[in-house]
Order: sequence, then structure tokens, then C-alpha cells
Amino acid sequence: MLSEYVLRRRVQFYETDAAGIVHFSWFFRYMEEAEHALWRAAGLSIHPPDSPIGFARASATCDFKRPLRFEDEFDVTIRIAAISRKTIQYSCVMMKDDVTLATGSMTVICVRTEQDGSLKATNVPEEIAARFAVAAQV
Amino acid sequence: MLSEYVLRRRVQFYETDAAGIVHFSWFFRYMEEAEHALWRAAGLSIHPPDSPIGFARASATCDFKRPLRFEDEFDVTIRIAAISRKTIQYSCVMMKDDVTLATGSMTVICVRTEQDGSLKATNVPEEIAARFAVAAQV
Amino acid sequence: MLSEYVLRRRVQFYETDAAGIVHFSWFFRYMEEAEHALWRAAGLSIHPPDSPIGFARASATCDFKRPLRFEDEFDVTIRIAAISRKTIQYSCVMMKDDVTLATGSMTVICVRTEQDGSLKATNVPEEIAARFAVAAQV
Amino acid sequence: MLSEYVLRRRVQFYETDAAGIVHFSWFFRYMEEAEHALWRAAGLSIHPPDSPIGFARASATCDFKRPLRFEDEFDVTIRIAAISRKTIQYSCVMMKDDVTLATGSMTVICVRTEQDGSLKATNVPEEIAARFAVAAQV
Repeated sequence: MLSEYVLRRRVQFYETDAAGIVHFSWFFRYMEEAEHALWRAAGLSIHPPDSPIGFARASATCDFKRPLRFEDEFDVTIRIAAISRKTIQYSCVMMKDDVTLATGSMTVICVRTEQDGSLKATNVPEEIAARFAVAAQV
Repeated sequence: MLSEYVLRRRVQFYETDAAGIVHFSWFFRYMEEAEHALWRAAGLSIHPPDSPIGFARASATCDFKRPLRFEDEFDVTIRIAAISRKTIQYSCVMMKDDVTLATGSMTVICVRTEQDGSLKATNVPEEIAARFAVAAQV
Repeated sequence: MLSEYVLRRRVQFYETDAAGIVHFSWFFRYMEEAEHALWRAAGLSIHPPDSPIGFARASATCDFKRPLRFEDEFDVTIRIAAISRKTIQYSCVMMKDDVTLATGSMTVICVRTEQDGSLKATNVPEEIAARFAVAAQV
Repeated sequence: MLSEYVLRRRVQFYETDAAGIVHFSWFFRYMEEAEHALWRAAGLSIHPPDSPIGFARASATCDFKRPLRFEDEFDVTIRIAAISRKTIQYSCVMMKDDVTLATGSMTVICVRTEQDGSLKATNVPEEIAARFAVAAQV
């Protein structure tokens, strides 16, 4: 059972903006990259082909403390903060060396697509829930 | 003095993901688009050429309620929720017709880039603060 | 029958990069935006829900002549350059006032997704081909 | 002297679109990622802080042969196809195992930003040109 993953990442040029720093929208993508890497490390894909379920974002937050610049290397640590029957909550911290760049959170809901295209919350399958545990430190 | 702006927007194909819906990172970009349109409506640019100051994101949050799909039209309403000496806080609601898609918030800090490249908080210039007022309904 | 469309567009902040100009990858997205707007003007969607066919890119090119900056307004003119049984070829020019920013081209193939997930070229449906004509000037 | 680089890459979820495959605009970003990795392997940064010069895109092309899907791993091989006094030309091939996904090219021009904000072609500095050689196979 896994409860955290550390993704090492380098800033790409197209992630920067005219202020010379990484555009804030990318921090949310970094979080999601780390989440998906955590799932792979647990032997899972969060979006396998033809799966009847998916994991939709219910909420996402990020506090930005220090900017990132082109070619900076940094670490994205994602942790399981809580698991309920239908949701998984993550906490995330991004660091460059020992400087905290940003902290964030994401809550995802297990959903099934209905006939009319709407998304309906459903239970996280047992074989998925069984791979994850809440992190000691969140 | 302006306190809100409504941006009409259409979903572009590159904003969708393999789940068939708009990727959640785009909602933060929609918020920022509406913020910049609010500034333009107030006769300002948030990032004029050669400006010594900028408005860095300090935090951003979003709660996702309904998905958006390719070519959907929707409205992004951004409101000034608070103004302090160095920060502006926005609240945001995204709607398709009368259905709420998402609600969010952003806090931005007025910053000056120091010699060493770090960003230092500074006062929002009076000529900018004078253009905005906190919205009655936030 | 339509053969061209002019899309008026404004540069968003997240489209710029640390060189202070629009990242080149966005010009391809601008082209596609104009393509989809052309289809809508012709009464069509290029990606309707549950459609058995799609229009995959076969090639794309762009020559960049002048940079675009934050909040610049510009026009994207897309034209039908050729139509064959299975493909549509577009030419594109992007201009700011009377200055040419970039010229480009895209060829798209009508495809059907096979059982094994591969994409197979198929005929452009007659009701789609009937809406478009090759532009006089390409 | 370096003349090629192979970047191993994995498809991220936000790179896919509602057709279930990687959006074509990403292939241009993959090329650029490989270019910048080639520069780093040569001991250079293509965009160091406060550099008076930059490398603007003059043209980019891509031919798309096979789609990429979420979590696919693939290789981006970029090669120096030609170097002139002011330009560098790259050729690129993207492969998944031994299947060619796409081939592309990019020409970049060494530019200096003028007082009025326009970009003017200038010579590639000798210390940069000295690090690269045209690839045997292009």
C-alpha cells in the first residue's frame, strides 16, 4: 500500500510566461503528474482504456510561495491525505532543494458517466482503494 | 470604479482531455482571462511592457461541480472580493446558462522583482487601486 | 458553401513565454480554433458527441514572421486550400493590422477508430464535404 | 560537439484531448523539449537569465503518422540538420518502440531584441556554434 510519491521534474520553456516564471496553472498540472505517477507506482493507471469509471476533480487549491524559472529542477511530493468511499484527497508540496515553492491539495471523486453524459459519483473500486493508505504525515 | 466582469467564453478543443471534458487546469486559466478582461474594462493592463511591478498569484482555489465539453459556451464572472495595501482577492463563478459549473478564488500580490531575481511584495499603486471597488455580492 | 473564416483573437497571458512573446506552439492552436470556427459557421461541429468519425491532423506547418505579445489583437484567416475524398487541406495567415505575423497550413484526414484503437482513413461524409468549397485565393 | 539527442518521454493526461489522443500541438512542444535537452547535453542553456540574444522559431513542421495515448512512453530524437551563420535547423523523429509516430522539423534564428521591441537576426555566438555539428544522418 502506497501513500506518497516524489516526482522529480524540470521546468520546460512552454511552462513559463511573460513574467519570466512558471505560469501558476502549471502547478496544478505538476500535482496531477505526481498523482498519476503515484498510481503507476501502485501498479495502477488512473485512466485505463475503456474503463467505465474515472476520477474527476472535485476541488483543487494551491498556495504559491516562490517562483519557478526555466530549467529549474524541483520535487513534487504528493500524499494521500484521506480516502472515503467515493473520494481520495491529496496534499502536495513542491520544493526546490530545501525551499518550499508551493503547497496544494486536490480532492478527486470516483465517477461513472451516465447515459445523458452527466457524471455520477460511485464507490472507489476495492482493488484500487486497497493499494493506497493515508500518509502518516500530511 | 469596477468590481466585476463577465467573460463569455467557448470551450476550445485543445482544452479538453481524454475524459472528454475540459481539463481542470483550464478553469484557473479561465479565471485569469476574466481577471485580465476586468482590468482592461477598467482601462488597465495587468502586465504592461516594462512595468517594474507585477501581480503574482499567492493562492488559487477551485471547486468543480459540472463538466464542460467541446464547444460549450459559458460565462466566467469575476468579482473583487477584497483589496488590501498589497493584495487583491477575487471570487469567481463559472456558469453555463443557469447551471453553476465551478466556483473559485484567487489572491494576487503586487510584487517588484529584486536584483537577485526574487519577488518582493510592494504596495498596489494608487492609480490601480483607485479603479477597483469590492463587489457588493461576493 | 464556405471557403474561409476570419477569427479575431486576443493574446492571453498564459500563451506567452519567458521570451515575452507568444510561444510558437500556440500558433497551431490558433489555426485550429479558426478551423473549428469555420466549421461552426458552416453549421457543423468537427467533433460532435458520439460521432463515429473524426478529423485527425496529418500534417501542420507554420512560418513565423513577427512575434505576438500579451493582449495583442490579431486575425486568423483560415481557407480551404484543397479537398480530396479523405482529406481537407487548409492554408492560414495570421495578421495584426496589416502586418503578417505567420502563415501556416494543416492537412486533416477523416478517420474512423478501429476496434484495436488504430485510426483508419475513411471518406469525408458527403453532408460535410457539401458545406465547403476551395477558396479562390489560397 | 553534439549533433543529436534522444529524449524519453511519457504522455501526460493534460496532453490528451477529447479524441482520446495527444493533441497535435504537443508534438511541437515535444520537439522543443528535445532541443533544449540537446543544448543542456552540450553544456548550454537556450535561454539563460539576462541573455541579450534568444533563439526564435522561424518555422516548424510536423507530419503525424500514429496517435499517442495517455501514459504511452516514446522517444523524441532531435538532430542538427544544418547550421548557418544566423540559423539552426533541426530534424526530429518521434517513435514508440519501433513505430514512427511523427517526423518534424524546426528552424530557429538567433535574434536580439531591439529598443522598439522588434526581433533582429544576429549571428549565432561562436561559443554556441562550436558545440554543435550537423548530424551524419538527418
